[in-house]
Amino acid sequence: MSPTVSRVRAAHARIEAAGRPEIWIGLRPRGEVEAEARTVDERVAAGERLPLAGLLFAVKNNIDVAGLPTTAGCPAYAYEPEADAPVVARLRAAGAIVLGTTNLDQFATGLVGTRSPYGAVRNAHDPARISGGSSSGSAVAVALGLVDFALGTDTAGSGRIPAAFNGVVGLKPTRGLVPTTGVVPACASIDCVTVFARTLPEAERALAHMVAPPVRELPSAPGRAPGPWRVAVADRERLGELDDGWGEAYQAAVRQLGASGAEVRTLDLTPFTEAAAMLYEGAFVAERYTAVGSFVDKLIAEGGDGLDPTVARIITRARDIPAHRLFADQDRLAALRARALEELGDADALLLPTAPGHPTLTEVAADPLGANARLGRFTNSTNLFDLAAVAVPAGEVGGLPFGVMLIGPAFTDERLARIAGLLRPETRLAVVGAHLSGQPLNPQLLALGARLDRTTTTAPVYRLHALSTTPPKPGLVRVGENGAAIETEVWRLPAEGLGRLLAALPRPMALGGVELADGSSVPGFLCEPAALADAEDITAYGGWRAYLNR
Amino acid sequence: MSPTVSRVRAAHARIEAAGRPEIWIGLRPRGEVEAEARTVDERVAAGERLPLAGLLFAVKNNIDVAGLPTTAGCPAYAYEPEADAPVVARLRAAGAIVLGTTNLDQFATGLVGTRSPYGAVRNAHDPARISGGSSSGSAVAVALGLVDFALGTDTAGSGRIPAAFNGVVGLKPTRGLVPTTGVVPACASIDCVTVFARTLPEAERALAHMVAPPVRELPSAPGRAPGPWRVAVADRERLGELDDGWGEAYQAAVRQLGASGAEVRTLDLTPFTEAAAMLYEGAFVAERYTAVGSFVDKLIAEGGDGLDPTVARIITRARDIPAHRLFADQDRLAALRARALEELGDADALLLPTAPGHPTLTEVAADPLGANARLGRFTNSTNLFDLAAVAVPAGEVGGLPFGVMLIGPAFTDERLARIAGLLRPETRLAVVGAHLSGQPLNPQLLALGARLDRTTTTAPVYRLHALSTTPPKPGLVRVGENGAAIETEVWRLPAEGLGRLLAALPRPMALGGVELADGSSVPGFLCEPAALADAEDITAYGGWRAYLNR
Repeated sequence: MSPTVSRVRAAHARIEAAGRPEIWIGLRPRGEVEAEARTVDERVAAGERLPLAGLLFAVKNNIDVAGLPTTAGCPAYAYEPEADAPVVARLRAAGAIVLGTTNLDQFATGLVGTRSPYGAVRNAHDPARISGGSSSGSAVAVALGLVDFALGTDTAGSGRIPAAFNGVVGLKPTRGLVPTTGVVPACASIDCVTVFARTLPEAERALAHMVAPPVRELPSAPGRAPGPWRVAVADRERLGELDDGWGEAYQAAVRQLGASGAEVRTLDLTPFTEAAAMLYEGAFVAERYTAVGSFVDKLIAEGGDGLDPTVARIITRARDIPAHRLFADQDRLAALRARALEELGDADALLLPTAPGHPTLTEVAADPLGANARLGRFTNSTNLFDLAAVAVPAGEVGGLPFGVMLIGPAFTDERLARIAGLLRPETRLAVVGAHLSGQPLNPQLLALGARLDRTTTTAPVYRLHALSTTPPKPGLVRVGENGAAIETEVWRLPAEGLGRLLAALPRPMALGGVELADGSSVPGFLCEPAALADAEDITAYGGWRAYLNR
Repeated sequence: MSPTVSRVRAAHARIEAAGRPEIWIGLRPRGEVEAEARTVDERVAAGERLPLAGLLFAVKNNIDVAGLPTTAGCPAYAYEPEADAPVVARLRAAGAIVLGTTNLDQFATGLVGTRSPYGAVRNAHDPARISGGSSSGSAVAVALGLVDFALGTDTAGSGRIPAAFNGVVGLKPTRGLVPTTGVVPACASIDCVTVFARTLPEAERALAHMVAPPVRELPSAPGRAPGPWRVAVADRERLGELDDGWGEAYQAAVRQLGASGAEVRTLDLTPFTEAAAMLYEGAFVAERYTAVGSFVDKLIAEGGDGLDPTVARIITRARDIPAHRLFADQDRLAALRARALEELGDADALLLPTAPGHPTLTEVAADPLGANARLGRFTNSTNLFDLAAVAVPAGEVGGLPFGVMLIGPAFTDERLARIAGLLRPETRLAVVGAHLSGQPLNPQLLALGARLDRTTTTAPVYRLHALSTTPPKPGLVRVGENGAAIETEVWRLPAEGLGRLLAALPRPMALGGVELADGSSVPGFLCEPAALADAEDITAYGGWRAYLNR
């Protein structure tokens, strides 16, 4: 079977198995998608260059996809677009294949993912929690592996909040980099098309085909003074109330950037949070009325069928905001922006939690406006200030994804992604034999970027055997009651290094969880059972070094 | 013990254990280094910001380090520098600690690493092969994990060839980015200070502290037309003669960049290789006489003690090159440069093998000039054309490192590093149970960026058991003769994803080499022997899916 057809079928199987129909507003007919996939493979086979051939994507349903209605999350608003939005057309021209259009907070008005007559989108990792919005379906489709990447939009944070809640990457490009033609406006002057993917390189790969057509040169990133990355962070107090464990997770990200060589400095977050409050509380919300207000008024007059009550309230209330307030707010925003840029100074980026917390569906239902307003505390000011942002996963809190944003000046998108790339997971490795300090295979660890963390022992539940390998290695095996504590070194290394070590690991060695003296478990060296058959039991020595020095 | 003192002691233990005295020309007294390490830790403890605190480095001995003689690889040339070269001073001011100075091809004249009275530097991975030069000791010290990073210099390729041969990263910054004050010149107008490290982020971290002091803004990278990375590659024929397997390894790197989304195009390498030949064969070599010629003449008159005969011949022959030839060569170079830039067009980078092959010490001894000239075929033109370059490992050939370079316009150093970052190792994973397509844990693989490679079986040497885990999983165990072929899916995923999977792997699962039907071995799921004790043997079903459907 043609490889892309096979990928399309696997994706459809996953979509069915996922049991999350609320992700989608429109799925293209399978036959049509498979035919397109076959054509892509034929074109590639004929020598055509299709740089995104084989990649599957989903499109937030406020962005035009020819052949599917654009609803913006409101069935009555639906229209049949004549053509793909330019951003969609460019991705398809590069060989990527649209599977369908995704659910969103109606008119992209919300950060929760619940404000849709097509259903509240449940979180990819915990169906009792919100997906975040407004690009709810796109983020969850990526997180569940239903598509390779997905398009969203971001006005207040709609391309970042759902990235954080579902553990994926969200790129919010500099305003104007990606055309918004064919996109239903939320606040037209600050809307951005965004992209979600599971890894930074995948997101950047898609973004490369989303930016304006290659008729002109991209603006260069502003110059910077030499030196290490300079990352501004917020004082714990200025962050306001965060969910349990989120402050600690943020501090861990701050520490990780510092440990990667970035210069970390504190700034006063006030201008950012004050501007954030203006997005819905001030006059700027009137731009949403400009976009869809007369339609909403008419629909209400006709009974309001399919209108989300919260969204309707926000948009209709914006009708009566006087223009003089907008002038005043614009002045105030300009002053806040000047203060914000002064706070940033020559920092390359501002690191913030993407959101202050992750509510349940029930919590949002109980206080739709309050819960939403809280979510945007860190994201709302970004587009008002004309900044770029990259949202990336940064570990977990209580088993759910935690995410951070790097925010920086316009056209520093690539720079932000590079700094975000430093927030790579670090892993641990327990070694008991030939990889110990000074032993023959220790240079392997050093070459993978490992650093000695501490020296300890295993929990007293293991036995150690001398294997007949070259070079000689011990085999560690968990036995429970008749075990002993074995001398262990714990090393820290990048996850990539751990993966490379495993990829090159010769049989009969294996890696798996090893319980340490303190009860924690870290990946460490084990071995296949067959290798233990004729191996001398050297547990009594207490460790490999003692055995070698016997 | 203070953590940096402890790192210094471990490094000294590794230096002794390595048995490679030829790496070093000057090692600082241990007591002095430990005292400095203690001071660094005290300053950090007192709240001072030292972004490179705890990192250990080595310095090529043509760069001044106060307290150690600068020899440029020639004992008679030695002088006691009054101060650190600015680049060394900046790194030390940031908290990094110099362990010593490293061996080099004398007067940085050579790409082999053998032209030194301090001894030929043996390759880190195969002592019968050359280390490459001229920054020989620095590259090997990094590859063996003796230091975290090391400084080199690069005129013809001295900061890249040894990176490739020893499997480390070498950054050759744009000319002028890193000050060359306090560096013994080779060809003063094109010399660059470089840095070696085991990973790109570590190399870039050091480089951030090496660039000119923060009194002015760094020049921005030139703008680029939007779209994916555009990478130029050379026709196989224009690459000339390569070592066995090197052409294939280069093509694999080309494919990997293509698969990561880069647009790959072919250029005519002729202007690059023609300019390369001019570096030693034309008039430019006269600049080496300008630098040290009168010293070399005098030393020869006094008996030539400690002078490398090949280096002496190259430098003294340069004395009689007439200036009119230099003018003519400069004209010819300008024309070649114009052609080369035209060939590059709007490509972001040119991808080349770093060297055409990796000779043994014996081969270089048999033909010192010929072997050296061959090595520089791809590197020699970079500085003549005022380009930037990043050299990174790209797999292995015959068990030895293979490396490639990305070369691009001046001030695109960061861009080149980002593209080089796409050459990340990809790994495979054999799954036989809950991670199979459609099974409950398959989304874990998708979330780590995995793609299904193929469906096969294990070699007929395994037995499968139903473990009592949640969710239910099978345990695969190698038994040899009484085994069977078990249904297996092989997935491709980034090494980082494999490392993350391992880091989160719950006991009793383990990962290790699994032999497939075709005899190859890939990392795959195994389990701890104790888990098999009460588990039902389900081998007869031939696989986990068949067992579930029983």
